[in-house]
Amino acid sequence: MMQNPQILAALQERLDGLNGSPSGYMESLPKVVKRRVNALKNLQVKCAHIEAKFYEEVHELERKYAALYQPLFDKRSDIVKAAYEPTDEECEWKADEEEELTDEMKEKAKLEEEKKDEEKEDPKGIPEFWLTVFKNVDLLSDMLQEHDEPILKHLQDIKVKFSDPGQPMSFTLEFHFEPNDFFTNTVLTKTYKMRSEPDENDPFSFDGPEIMSCTGCTIDWTKGKNVTLKTIKKKQKHKGRGTVRTVTKTVPNDSFFNFFTPPEGKSEGAADEDAEAVLAADFEIGHFIRERIVPRAVLYFTGEAIEDDDDDYDEEGEEADDEV
Amino acid sequence: MMQNPQILAALQERLDGLNGSPSGYMESLPKVVKRRVNALKNLQVKCAHIEAKFYEEVHELERKYAALYQPLFDKRSDIVKAAYEPTDEECEWKADEEEELTDEMKEKAKLEEEKKDEEKEDPKGIPEFWLTVFKNVDLLSDMLQEHDEPILKHLQDIKVKFSDPGQPMSFTLEFHFEPNDFFTNTVLTKTYKMRSEPDENDPFSFDGPEIMSCTGCTIDWTKGKNVTLKTIKKKQKHKGRGTVRTVTKTVPNDSFFNFFTPPEGKSEGAADEDAEAVLAADFEIGHFIRERIVPRAVLYFTGEAIEDDDDDYDEEGEEADDEV
Repeated sequence: MMQNPQILAALQERLDGLNGSPSGYMESLPKVVKRRVNALKNLQVKCAHIEAKFYEEVHELERKYAALYQPLFDKRSDIVKAAYEPTDEECEWKADEEEELTDEMKEKAKLEEEKKDEEKEDPKGIPEFWLTVFKNVDLLSDMLQEHDEPILKHLQDIKVKFSDPGQPMSFTLEFHFEPNDFFTNTVLTKTYKMRSEPDENDPFSFDGPEIMSCTGCTIDWTKGKNVTLKTIKKKQKHKGRGTVRTVTKTVPNDSFFNFFTPPEGKSEGAADEDAEAVLAADFEIGHFIRERIVPRAVLYFTGEAIEDDDDDYDEEGEEADDEV
Repeated sequence: MMQNPQILAALQERLDGLNGSPSGYMESLPKVVKRRVNALKNLQVKCAHIEAKFYEEVHELERKYAALYQPLFDKRSDIVKAAYEPTDEECEWKADEEEELTDEMKEKAKLEEEKKDEEKEDPKGIPEFWLTVFKNVDLLSDMLQEHDEPILKHLQDIKVKFSDPGQPMSFTLEFHFEPNDFFTNTVLTKTYKMRSEPDENDPFSFDGPEIMSCTGCTIDWTKGKNVTLKTIKKKQKHKGRGTVRTVTKTVPNDSFFNFFTPPEGKSEGAADEDAEAVLAADFEIGHFIRERIVPRAVLYFTGEAIEDDDDDYDEEGEEADDEV
C-alpha cells in the first residue's frame, strides 16, 4: 500500500505537528473520501458557532439564577459577620442526630464542649470563616502566606457579579472586607473578561467560554502594611575605596494579595511562556472561586465539599482496569 | 485546648467516616459557632434545590439547541452514507493550503495519491466512519472486539433524542444501521433516565443531573450471527461408566453489543459492588457518546479531537510546580 514509505512518513510527521492528528489516518484516505471529510469539518465549524450561542444562553441563565441565589448568600454573609443571629429552627441540622456516637461519648463530648465554651469569650458570627475556606482549598492555600492570614480574617464575603445582558461576557469577584488596619478599601475586585466564540484559526478547540483577560484593583495599603512588598538590605562595596555600605531595596513579596495585580491579558501575544503559565493559573483560580467556592463556601469550611471531578477520574481508571 | 485527646480523636475519626470531613474542624468549634454553621448548611441545601432547577433549564436549552444542530448532523449522516455528495465549495478546507510542505513533497504526495486512487475502487461516502471513530476513542475501543468490527461497518449514524418537555429527564442514543446480515433491527437504542434533584440524605453531593438507570433493546440477531454469545465445548466424564462425552454450552461473549443489555438500574439497591461498577462504566460511556462523540464525531474520525479536561489537569500540575 505504501509506495514510498519515507515520503509518507515525512508527510505524516508534518501533519501530526500541524493539526495534532495522532494517526495520519487522513493521509491514507482516497482523495474523494478526504474531500467528504473536509465537508464534515466545515459542518463541524458551523456546530462550533451554534455551540457558542448555546453558552451565551447558559450565561444568561447563570445570571438569572445568580439573582435567585443572592438572598441566600446575603443571609450567609449576615450570619458570618454576626449581622444576623439564626433562629433555633434555622440551625437544626438533621444529620447531627444520625451520628452514631455512643451515649457515653456524647456525654463526654458535651462536657468537653461546655468547658471549651467557658474558656473562650463569646465569639461573634463565624470567626475566620473565609480564611478557613482558603486554608481548606489546596488551590488557594498554595497562594496563602503567613502574613496574609491576619488580613484575610477581615474578609466578610466574596460575591460574583455577572456582566449586564448585551455587554461583553465577563464576571467580577468582589472581596468584601470589614474595616481593618491593613488597607482602606472595603471591596477588592478582580474582573475576568470572557469570550464565547470559536477561534477562527482553531475552531475545533472551542469548548465553551474562555477567559480572555483579567484586571485587578489598586489596594490602598496603610503605611507599612503592604504585604506584597518587602524591603531587603544589601551590602554594597565601593569599587574604588573598598568601603561597605548597606542599602535598602523594596522587592515584590509572595502574597495572596498579588491576585489583585494580575499579569497582562492574552491579547498581548508577545508575552513569554512563564507569563502565560501565571495567567493560566490565575484564570483557574478565578474560575474555581466563581464556580465552587462562592456557591458552596460552607462545605469548604467544614471540609464536606466533594471533588466530583476526581471521582470521575477514579472511576475511569477503575473501569479501564476491569477491561484490561 | 484538648482536654481529652483520646475522646476528641475518636470523635473525629467517627465524624471523618460519617461525613467525609477531613479535619474534624467542626468539632473543635464553640457550640454557638457550630450552631451558625448548621444554619449555613441549611441555606446550602436550599441552594442545591435552586441548582437543580438551573440544570432543568439547561436541559431545556440543550433540547432547543439539539434541534438547531440536527440539520447539520443529518447532512453529516447523508455524506457518510453517500446519500449526498458535497459540492466543491462545501469541501474546501482552508487549512489544507496552510500546510507548509515543500513543492517537491506536495508533488510526490500527489503522485502517491493518484496511484492509490487508481488501485482502489471508487469508495462510497465515508467508509467505516463510525467504526473508525470507535477505534480512535479509548473508552469505546476498549469495548470493541474483533467480531464487532464487521457489524459496526454498517453503523450509519448515532443520534441523541431528548425527552419531551414536562416528561422525566432522559435521553436516548439511537444507533442507525444499514441493512446487514447480522440483525434485522435498523435502529438499536439505549435510554438513560436522569434525575436533577438533590438526594435528601446527601444533598451536598448534588452536582447536576445524575443518570439513574438505563434500558437497552432486544437485538434480533440473524441465526448464527449473535456475537454476544459463544458456544463452548466441554468434555464430561460419566461418573459410573467412565465414558467421555462432549457437550455444547452457550455462554456470554465479550462484545460491544452487550452495551444494549445493561445491568439493572441504581434503584434496585441490592446490587453488589461489581454490578455498580459496571453500571458506572456504562453511564460514563453513554454520557461520553452524548456529550463528545455525537457532537463532534468527525474530529474523532480524523484524530483532531482535543481532550480539554486533560489539558486543564496539566496546567494545574504546572502551576503547582511553580508555586512550590
